[in-house]
Order: sequence, then C-alpha cells, then structure tokens
Amino acid sequence: MPRRMNEFTLIERLTHGVPTNAAVVVGPGDDCAVLDFGFADRWLLLKTDAVVEGIHYSEATPPERVGHKALARCLSDIAAMAGTPVAALVTLALPPHFDPGYLSDVYAGINALARRHAVAVVGGETTTNPDRTLISVCLVGTALKDKCPLRSAARPGDAVFVTGELGGSLAGRHLEFEPRLVEARWLVERFSIHAMIDLSDGLASDLRQVLEASRVGAELLASAIPISPAAKRAARGANSAKAPLTAALTEGEDFELLFTLPSRDAVPLADAWKQQHPALKLSCIGRITAEPGMNLRTREGLRPVTEHGYIHFEKSRSHHRAG
Amino acid sequence: MPRRMNEFTLIERLTHGVPTNAAVVVGPGDDCAVLDFGFADRWLLLKTDAVVEGIHYSEATPPERVGHKALARCLSDIAAMAGTPVAALVTLALPPHFDPGYLSDVYAGINALARRHAVAVVGGETTTNPDRTLISVCLVGTALKDKCPLRSAARPGDAVFVTGELGGSLAGRHLEFEPRLVEARWLVERFSIHAMIDLSDGLASDLRQVLEASRVGAELLASAIPISPAAKRAARGANSAKAPLTAALTEGEDFELLFTLPSRDAVPLADAWKQQHPALKLSCIGRITAEPGMNLRTREGLRPVTEHGYIHFEKSRSHHRAG
Repeated sequence: MPRRMNEFTLIERLTHGVPTNAAVVVGPGDDCAVLDFGFADRWLLLKTDAVVEGIHYSEATPPERVGHKALARCLSDIAAMAGTPVAALVTLALPPHFDPGYLSDVYAGINALARRHAVAVVGGETTTNPDRTLISVCLVGTALKDKCPLRSAARPGDAVFVTGELGGSLAGRHLEFEPRLVEARWLVERFSIHAMIDLSDGLASDLRQVLEASRVGAELLASAIPISPAAKRAARGANSAKAPLTAALTEGEDFELLFTLPSRDAVPLADAWKQQHPALKLSCIGRITAEPGMNLRTREGLRPVTEHGYIHFEKSRSHHRAG
Repeated sequence: MPRRMNEFTLIERLTHGVPTNAAVVVGPGDDCAVLDFGFADRWLLLKTDAVVEGIHYSEATPPERVGHKALARCLSDIAAMAGTPVAALVTLALPPHFDPGYLSDVYAGINALARRHAVAVVGGETTTNPDRTLISVCLVGTALKDKCPLRSAARPGDAVFVTGELGGSLAGRHLEFEPRLVEARWLVERFSIHAMIDLSDGLASDLRQVLEASRVGAELLASAIPISPAAKRAARGANSAKAPLTAALTEGEDFELLFTLPSRDAVPLADAWKQQHPALKLSCIGRITAEPGMNLRTREGLRPVTEHGYIHFEKSRSHHRAG
C-alpha cells in the first residue's frame, strides 16, 4: 500500500497516456488545460479546483470566505495563464442535513468575487457527500494565443519575479486573497513573460514545477525573497520551530504569481510596476540557470533547496529554526 | 432545519440572481450551461457531474465501471443538447490511504469511453476527501446554434418520445450505459427536435422539468411507456412492492433521451429510426398539452402523475403495487 505516494506522482501516473485530440494545446500538467476551439487569436482555458471542509477550511470559517476561496483558487490558475475568466459552474457535495442559509452565504462569497471579475455563474450541481461539504468550481476562460505563459517556457538567464509576500497564508490570507488576474494581463501586454505559475503549493514546490517543465534550474537570493508579516509573526511565536524564510519557501496557499522574463527587462518592469501597481510588492528573487536544480544564495554560500513545499497527502514536515 | 429541502429547491434558491455576462446563452437550469464564445455557428457547452462512493456506486463496484459512469453521466448531458464533447477534466477527492491501482482502473474506464467519443482528458486534479472517494468530471463541448434543443422548447401538440427502456437501471445498467451522443446528433440533423433532456432522475421528474421550463403539460399513454426487463424482473421478485410501470416512471439513472417534436414528424421519425438505429428502441409515449400538469392515460382513465421520481437528499418512497 503506497502510503507515501504524493499528489504529483499520482497525477503523473494517472494522466500518462490519457486520450487526446486535435483541440488539445496543453493537457495535464499546467495551471489550466489549454484548448484550440478554432478562434483566430485566443485559446480556451479550462480549470477545476475543489475545497473540502476540514482540509481547506474549517466548520468555523465564515461561509462567504469559503465561497470566496473556492472560486478564487480557480481564478488564480486562470491568472497564471494571463487569461480572462468567463463562466463558472459550482458543484456542492453535501451531507444530508445541509443548512440552506449557510450555502446561500457560500454563494454570496462566490458571487461577490465573480462580479468583480465579470465571471458568470452558469450552473449549480448538488450531490451527496455524507460526511462533509466539498465545493468544486469549474471555470472556463480565454487567453491570447501569443500571450499565454506556460510553465515550460522559462529560459536560462531569465529573471525570476514573485508578486506579494510569501508564507503564513493560513493565518487568514488564504480565505480572502484576490487572484492576480489584472496584474497578469498587464504583465503579458507590456513585457515578454516567459513562464508563469501561481503559488499554491509553496514557492519551492511550484518553482520546481516550472524548472522541471522547462528543463532548467534556478538560483534564488535568500535576502530577496519577500516574507509576509504573518510568517514573521509566526516565527516569533513561543512554540515556533520554523524560520520565516522556510515559511516563505515552503508554505502553500500564497496564490501570488511567480514568473520569469528576460533579465534585460527586469529593471524596466520594476519601474513600470511601481507606477501601475503601487500597492502590490513585486520582487526579483533570482535567475534561471542552464544547470538543473534549485539553489539558494545565503550569507553562508549556495545551498540546494531541499524543501518540497506542502505536498498533499503527506504530513507537512517541521523544520528546526535556522537562525 | 429544513431537512426536507430537496435538490431542485436548493439549486433554484442558490442560483437565483447569480452573476451573468454577455457570454451566457443558458445559465442554470438546463442539462448544460450554454455559452456564446463568438463562434459563427456553435455554442460552447459546459457541464460538471460527480459520483460519490456509497451513493452512486459501492466499494464493490469494479473501478472501470465507476470511471465509465463518472464520464458517461456528463456525456449524457452533452447528448441532451445534441452536442459534441471535446475535453474533460477529472477531479479525484480521495481518502489519505488511496490505492493507486484502483484509481488507475477508474481512469481506464474513463479513458476507454473518452476514446470512443473522441474526448480528450486534459487534466487530473486531486484533493483530499477523508471519508470516501468522490469523482467529479467537467466537460466542455460544442453544439450547433440552430440545433441545440433546450428544455424550454416543448410546444403543445408535440409528440413525446423516449429512447431505450426505462426502470431498473440500478440493477446494473447505470454502470455501463452508453450516452446517446450519436443518436442525439442524428435526431437534430434530420428532424426539428423541440425540447430534449436526458433521463437521470426518472421519467416523471425529468419530464416535469421540461413541462415547467416550457410552461406546458403532457398526457402520457401508460401502455406505451417502455419498461426495461430489469424493472419487470424486479417487480416479479418476492418482496417487490413496486409495479413495473411505477419503476419506469420514477426510477432514475436511465440516461436515455426524452424529446419532443411536431406530431406530424412522429411517423417519419419512427420509420427512419428503425432503419438507422435498429438495435435501440424508440417509443412515442404521449403528447404535449397546452394545459399544465402531467397525466397518464390508463385502462382506468386519465390520472395525474404524482410520482416525482428520485429526488436527491430524500429517501425514495416505496409504492404499493398498483396491479
């Protein structure tokens, strides 16, 4: 019984050799599926994501935030393709004695976020899940064919950027983050973005997805990695065993964008960003290398990044505080 | 605590006033969402559906059939719009100690059916559902704009047809039915089909959806309703309290097509069908009336159909054998 098989290994195994057809541009393995439906200039994007009571939120989580999170996670994947979301379907899997008022509040959270991004909610399915509530959202959208940054497009010499500040999201931000849809489209309109991904499993884990898909490596600068106030607060806590940098590298659910672009564009980007998005931090955290692997430059020198981030189905490991 | 609220009431309540946009042709309430993505002649169809262990299948169900059913249910909804499915995403919600071999077999069932209908499987998401396995499938497809039969399009005087034989599906057919995609497209290419729906909740319940959406009624002929051998066998069983006709009217999961068309086309359709689809029964079971309501003509006269079919979240009612 392979108790140690994780999500990535399982998905890789299951999606090996799945049926394909002429419409498939990108199948399993990127933030969204990318399909060619015959538009002149656009791809179709398709994505599903689910949140589960007791896993992604608790019974005590305000239902509006549960709904917000359920839709926002999918929107974040559309953002990672610099896409425009169009319509969502909501699947509610419910215990027999559900509370309609609670579900109306979940929908209120979904609807408020959908309205802000002009997304239509075009269906609601319900089914029975006897033991707990599960909410799955399916999103369809579009992306410009020549401006849809895939995970596989990072190139040696690229600068690596992240938006926002990382780590500590589970203290609250994971329930109220705003998907970076506007920022992603702004980026691809003005700069030649190579690879992009949204940070859901943690910087180290998600960057590794980009590196493996692109067959390259990366060198990160420890001092440049933006650490959230929540991660710093947690590290100061009496029982903390985790350094803030480790939190920023390995904790999931940041839902910020990580992307790469030619290093010559790094300074123009930083300047234009400050003008356009003054409220959102943007950090150049390192560069793409031709040699595979992920390394971190610290005061003590270059060391391999061994943290894998949060991998579903495995217990998260505790790290001894480094400094 | 409204324990008696059923699926239809809940969905109606939740999807009232949901956000919409210019792309929405048909939102909540039909077999699929219908979207206008700017094609000259086609709509985009979007559908999700889930199967849950212990609800839609058991631990003992062969995993290939679980996968088959998960995809086939969605395909049946695409068929009800006379659509062509293009690509599917599969969400697996799994207990921590899942069996990868079992899941590979689930995928084998999905993949075999997908290949038969040229559907690409373009992604696999996994998440944790601690207590049982849940499999949700999201499908995107297309339908011809002028040949996409909605639930709301039935007209007084229409003949009402169903494919196949009804009732008793849970004895086995629900795990191996073939979605009526080919037959549905054949129908709309050759005949002016008004309304169409796939039978998932039971003839009485699903026809009622058509009647309410179309603001019409129906008169069914009891002797014309095709009853499956499985429903007849069950009725002969020692402990059975259900007449075969009641089974055909109220048991769900038939996944056959119900449709209406002008009565003048009924005989030409029946003739052409026998030529083209000799292996699949087609039955004219009644007609659409201007007066609302659903009535059944039996030897005893006309009586209202009060059976509501299987409604999720409510225990199915047992019916005393009528004769």
